[in-house]
Amino acid sequence: MSRVPAGLWKKYIAVQIYGANTDVGKTVFSTLLGLRVKHGLKRRKYQIQYIKPVSTGPASDRDDDYVRRYTGQTVSTLFQFKDPVSPHIAARDSARDPKDIPNDSFLNHRLHQQLRNSAYAIHHKSDDWGFGIVETAGGVLSPGPSGTPQADIYRSLRLPAVLVGDHKLGGIASTISAAESLIMRGYDLDAVVCFDDKSKYQNGEYLTRYFNDKMGIPVYNIPWIPNNLDGKDEREEQALMKQYYEKVCKDREVHNIAARIVDRHRKRIENIDSMASRTHKTIWHPFTQHKHVEKAEDVLVFDSAYGDYFQVKRTSKSETSGELDDSLPMLYPAFDGSASWWTQGLGHGNPRLALEAAYAAGRYGHIMFAGATHEPALKLAEHLLEGLKNPRLTKVFYTDDGSTATEVGIKMGVRAACKHYGWDGSKEAIGVLGLKGSYHGDTIGAMDASEPCVFNEKVDWYRGRGYWFDYPTYKLKGGRWVVEPPAGMEEEFGPVQQFAEQDDIFDFDARGQSPRYEAYIEKTLDRLVKREGKKFGALVMEPVILGAGGMIFVDPLFQQSLARVVRRYNFATSSEAAPPAIEGGHAWTGLPVMFDEVFTGLYRLGRFSSASFLEVHPDISVHAKLLTGGLLPLSITAASDSIFQAFWGDEKSEALLHGHSYTAHPIGSHVANVSLDRMDNYYHGSKWYQFKRDWKEVQSQATSTRQDKRDKTWKITPNNLQTESRLWSFWGKEFVHSLSHHERVDHVNALGSTLAVSLKDKSGAGYTSSAAIGLRDSLLFDHSKVQIHSRILGNVIYLMASMTTTQSQLKTVEETFRQKLDAISE
Amino acid sequence: MSRVPAGLWKKYIAVQIYGANTDVGKTVFSTLLGLRVKHGLKRRKYQIQYIKPVSTGPASDRDDDYVRRYTGQTVSTLFQFKDPVSPHIAARDSARDPKDIPNDSFLNHRLHQQLRNSAYAIHHKSDDWGFGIVETAGGVLSPGPSGTPQADIYRSLRLPAVLVGDHKLGGIASTISAAESLIMRGYDLDAVVCFDDKSKYQNGEYLTRYFNDKMGIPVYNIPWIPNNLDGKDEREEQALMKQYYEKVCKDREVHNIAARIVDRHRKRIENIDSMASRTHKTIWHPFTQHKHVEKAEDVLVFDSAYGDYFQVKRTSKSETSGELDDSLPMLYPAFDGSASWWTQGLGHGNPRLALEAAYAAGRYGHIMFAGATHEPALKLAEHLLEGLKNPRLTKVFYTDDGSTATEVGIKMGVRAACKHYGWDGSKEAIGVLGLKGSYHGDTIGAMDASEPCVFNEKVDWYRGRGYWFDYPTYKLKGGRWVVEPPAGMEEEFGPVQQFAEQDDIFDFDARGQSPRYEAYIEKTLDRLVKREGKKFGALVMEPVILGAGGMIFVDPLFQQSLARVVRRYNFATSSEAAPPAIEGGHAWTGLPVMFDEVFTGLYRLGRFSSASFLEVHPDISVHAKLLTGGLLPLSITAASDSIFQAFWGDEKSEALLHGHSYTAHPIGSHVANVSLDRMDNYYHGSKWYQFKRDWKEVQSQATSTRQDKRDKTWKITPNNLQTESRLWSFWGKEFVHSLSHHERVDHVNALGSTLAVSLKDKSGAGYTSSAAIGLRDSLLFDHSKVQIHSRILGNVIYLMASMTTTQSQLKTVEETFRQKLDAISE
Repeated sequence: MSRVPAGLWKKYIAVQIYGANTDVGKTVFSTLLGLRVKHGLKRRKYQIQYIKPVSTGPASDRDDDYVRRYTGQTVSTLFQFKDPVSPHIAARDSARDPKDIPNDSFLNHRLHQQLRNSAYAIHHKSDDWGFGIVETAGGVLSPGPSGTPQADIYRSLRLPAVLVGDHKLGGIASTISAAESLIMRGYDLDAVVCFDDKSKYQNGEYLTRYFNDKMGIPVYNIPWIPNNLDGKDEREEQALMKQYYEKVCKDREVHNIAARIVDRHRKRIENIDSMASRTHKTIWHPFTQHKHVEKAEDVLVFDSAYGDYFQVKRTSKSETSGELDDSLPMLYPAFDGSASWWTQGLGHGNPRLALEAAYAAGRYGHIMFAGATHEPALKLAEHLLEGLKNPRLTKVFYTDDGSTATEVGIKMGVRAACKHYGWDGSKEAIGVLGLKGSYHGDTIGAMDASEPCVFNEKVDWYRGRGYWFDYPTYKLKGGRWVVEPPAGMEEEFGPVQQFAEQDDIFDFDARGQSPRYEAYIEKTLDRLVKREGKKFGALVMEPVILGAGGMIFVDPLFQQSLARVVRRYNFATSSEAAPPAIEGGHAWTGLPVMFDEVFTGLYRLGRFSSASFLEVHPDISVHAKLLTGGLLPLSITAASDSIFQAFWGDEKSEALLHGHSYTAHPIGSHVANVSLDRMDNYYHGSKWYQFKRDWKEVQSQATSTRQDKRDKTWKITPNNLQTESRLWSFWGKEFVHSLSHHERVDHVNALGSTLAVSLKDKSGAGYTSSAAIGLRDSLLFDHSKVQIHSRILGNVIYLMASMTTTQSQLKTVEETFRQKLDAISE
Repeated sequence: MSRVPAGLWKKYIAVQIYGANTDVGKTVFSTLLGLRVKHGLKRRKYQIQYIKPVSTGPASDRDDDYVRRYTGQTVSTLFQFKDPVSPHIAARDSARDPKDIPNDSFLNHRLHQQLRNSAYAIHHKSDDWGFGIVETAGGVLSPGPSGTPQADIYRSLRLPAVLVGDHKLGGIASTISAAESLIMRGYDLDAVVCFDDKSKYQNGEYLTRYFNDKMGIPVYNIPWIPNNLDGKDEREEQALMKQYYEKVCKDREVHNIAARIVDRHRKRIENIDSMASRTHKTIWHPFTQHKHVEKAEDVLVFDSAYGDYFQVKRTSKSETSGELDDSLPMLYPAFDGSASWWTQGLGHGNPRLALEAAYAAGRYGHIMFAGATHEPALKLAEHLLEGLKNPRLTKVFYTDDGSTATEVGIKMGVRAACKHYGWDGSKEAIGVLGLKGSYHGDTIGAMDASEPCVFNEKVDWYRGRGYWFDYPTYKLKGGRWVVEPPAGMEEEFGPVQQFAEQDDIFDFDARGQSPRYEAYIEKTLDRLVKREGKKFGALVMEPVILGAGGMIFVDPLFQQSLARVVRRYNFATSSEAAPPAIEGGHAWTGLPVMFDEVFTGLYRLGRFSSASFLEVHPDISVHAKLLTGGLLPLSITAASDSIFQAFWGDEKSEALLHGHSYTAHPIGSHVANVSLDRMDNYYHGSKWYQFKRDWKEVQSQATSTRQDKRDKTWKITPNNLQTESRLWSFWGKEFVHSLSHHERVDHVNALGSTLAVSLKDKSGAGYTSSAAIGLRDSLLFDHSKVQIHSRILGNVIYLMASMTTTQSQLKTVEETFRQKLDAISE
């Protein structure tokens, strides 16, 4: 994934010429287009530039010479291979050193560089505009030197595309298919061009109807290329072609297509320029105090995204001078440092996911799911139940997002508890048990499961229902892993404990059970249940990390203790008799335990399930976000059989009467299957090896004493939870450690793809705090090595990688982060 | 859209051979495959059948003769055209009468017939299995005789596909693009075949890596076709080819591909056969009392869907004998009579929507929306604000489904009211005003906005907050349109009123305002607010039809009256001073009025907004379901500026702190733009003309007296609401009227795409009633003209069309419905 700006300039129009097949007239069209534009358009003069990124074939037959001959224009071929075969064969068979064969990223950078330099030069040295014609090789998906299909190689630039259609028999099919391949890769197809060979195939006529009438993509039919060249010598041939070009470049259709490209460029610029203010006018943003959005310009405009990078519109904020420099690209790539609100798994604009989404749309559209089934939803349910490795869970209930899935989980848990203890939930207040700072979603039921906080302070229908425990947290502070009690609660939780490694905090064998934690929990429950007569329906927790609450890393031993105590506790109030235990092997006891893994699950922390970190099997498990690999809303609530049985009855009203229209929609379900398969492969394969090794190596220097023990896979618990030998992060261990020593940093946490940096903040923390805003803004707007889009929660700034982010990408991000942190400290 | 069963039989394997281009060896491969299978596979014998649905070219050069010559097998060409060009040109230029040129549906039916007859014959007359090879013409998207790309023509059958790759230069690109075109149309690609021409292009090698390693689709490389035929006479050529076939059909790769096809067929059958029981085991279904699902077999298995039809697995329920007949196809097409839970707009498996979904996935993936914008979401917001034609609405807030959008709407309305009246919602009980029988969604907040009913009876956290009015309903009863008060409420609402036409019920000019309704509403409000001191935050209504509540059609004049009174009423309790009115042109008064158009909006009833039927401009408008044309979850809550201002403040906590991870996801937003454009075109164009004419013509016979008035467009109200000259339905007027006279029918309603038939039910109505179950089951399981999948709500059975359903399709559905209704009446 190359990090280049998308190819858009105010006064430089770059267009990419694709062919529906090889030998359809790309070079002839490129020549015509250049000649036409050179004559000026709409009272504007243009300087033309031809670029052929990759060319194969003998020097005598080079496209760039050809174009130069007929146009007299600058032509650049970036990479030339002699053999007239596909570039991937030519590259492989060439005498070149493999390191001289351009990889995708290099090719992209070179192409961008060429365009950028021309745009810059024209802007500063001339009143003309620039017009860049980038001619591809072969068909749309013909492999480049690296073997990657070229439409994928050049995707980061996302130049507007013109497709030269195939005039031959079968050319209708190949032209439409080629267009579809471009479109599903997120390209904007400005036009289709057909050379009209006056053959009986009449492809142009059909394609005009198909693209123009059905899809709103104009088709231009251009006079046929002289094909009576056989037997003529080179001079005669060239004279004939010269004649053709001179005549045809004045053709109406050639004019129209040039005008169309110019017009589309103008509209695209106008659109991008107006988007922020139009958005400001019509969009009510999520989680946004609009009074704080001072100017329309504060709205970030995203043109597109690819891999780990957004393409963001430059604004005056990014300029040191405070004024936009129009010689620079209008868009710049910014690392998606919040993983698009914690959803991103397989990278933006992933062509495989796009194709799979289209497959499910093409096979099903939507299928209403009541009393019905289809393959993607069934397979996904089976995949999840298998992947969660929790013998309790047997059923999967589908909804649309984390909040709705949480509501379902709460309905499940509370109903099961009420039925068991004989409570009438419609008359009695039934709460949940949880942790302070939890957050489970924005619908009222999910909100009610969290304690009062800034999120629900002004929500009139919010009624917090439950009790939320204090707890010790863990973090890396000044190079040391510590478990800390909340201020003033040393008595309940003990003093600060130090650990050599993050692993040690999760080493329950070594740490043992905690009588202190358990006593505190029991004492609290006795007060709530036995003395105050409060009723509870479920324990609801985010394992390991409380996300929206501020990236709080909870001591896992406390979460484990809480589940253990809740499961052995009798929640009947003192006036009630304890009901007999529910029968069945994996029946819940005490209260149903529900884990909200919406953020932490499905490999966000490096493992399929974050419950495995706690070595606890919940009775209810909620998943969303990464489920679809970062493409679409879809969520599930998995439940145990004893939970399911609570809704079993003669009356329909006893059932779980919940279900959104798009429940288990096939597109989301299918994409989820593909994404999970992919992520499973990363987990079991070598994809994340570099990250894991990084944490191991630094670790072994730091703490050799406990090495032997840790090198063994952790003991598998009786419940056979999947655990791993050690904890690791996408973020470099040294980097994380060094941050923890930084003067502006209070503490750091890093696990899986998540990095959370808690800044020292004199103004007081909390969601409404303005700390970290400066760092966030300098990461996004200061032009340095890499721009980073990040999100903050109070004084915590966090970064998140997708599952496909590479170590070298992250190194650059780390360096930049470090620099910016230093800068705000000065 | 042809209604044929998908091409799947237990003992008859049908496979479709597609080419990446023309002239890539489809016929040679078909011949080889047939020869290989003829030799038997896995200890099973096969009878081979070749079908060439459409062939062009002179008789001397026909593919079927060719295949027959080398295999001695049965070959059928369904349609032959002489000219060796694309079938759409050949058909057009042929001497045939246009009516003899097969349309898509006919072609599909003929193909299905051929396969079905063979399957039937083989099953009943032989112990062998059958193997059908369907060879297409040209490339994947080459047009058929009608001009439709053939992959679209044959999509209903959804035969497993084998793609013959292109060995030529450029063939890598055309093969991958062709595969993508098949996949995004929902085809399962069993294999890719490459003829290995030993050329330096080495396409087979590349394609093997691409498909096999990246996509899990195996590639088979088959020895090259003799190409030294030039100069040889026919006999020599045939001898050479014969030799080739005899040798190569024993080739390992040819064996492997045949085995692969057989194996995939086996797995597909096993999968379909096991899906119901696996679903029964793992899926917790929405809105389902699982105790009522007696057998796993009761779960409907959907293989796929296309246009208006599901492909449903046959079960013993559909057999008169009670036993499955394996000579029949395993799947049957059933009309999607609930529009997939009210979502369906542009037909299942719509290739355009699939492509557009892929475009947005390819361009963006997901973009986190806080403080940001992207083109699809912005365009959609603008489109909606324009389409709703409600001058009050200025802002769009995105969420994921109707329930979450309702929660947002309620948060908005209640907050605005609390701020205005100076109430503290966190301490005081603030309710909503609504109608009895309303239903707004399944999350707790949305549930709380509905009165207690079967849906929330056992939801422990449900606390109905508000007051729900009684109201008169309207319906067609025994051929007469009536407005009826609820039983015993004639005093409040007046006696039954009769109307000549449905239009007259919505003719507010003629009906005038209703002092009686308004007095009743005011009296009720006085009691609630002034005497009992109750506080209300919003009026929340589904315009015209209460959907989930049982397809109740409310007297629109009552809904209009309710909005009018609420807007002029002072909701300050008797101890409070009335606050000054909010300033601004379109500020809300009384209480914010929120319309839940999730079901009724976006053309479900034939108009963009169902508010237009009431001639009321709500302050908050909620939309979902049809928004994405029936593809994906996405919803919006539109609000007025005076609502927006209620969240404006210095504190972040005063903002609307709501937002799901996939808020305004680009795929849903983009697909919504395309769908709305399409539906707008239907509305403004001639697509629905037949339906509209049908309602006009019958009407003009029935009531000529008021004809003149009705022929004029309804007067536009001062607020300039878009209204139409008359109400109409997709369902035939005569059919609807005749149903209303049926002895088993109490009353009927039909508006836009929705038909609701209320059956007489002695056992008592309600959601848990079992009435209509018999009718529903006979519609789905009895094999007659057309099978219909429908949903019921108590004693109401309803049918819903998509926006693309044709009149002729509906005529068949109507006939069948009528027959089945007669049958249950006997």
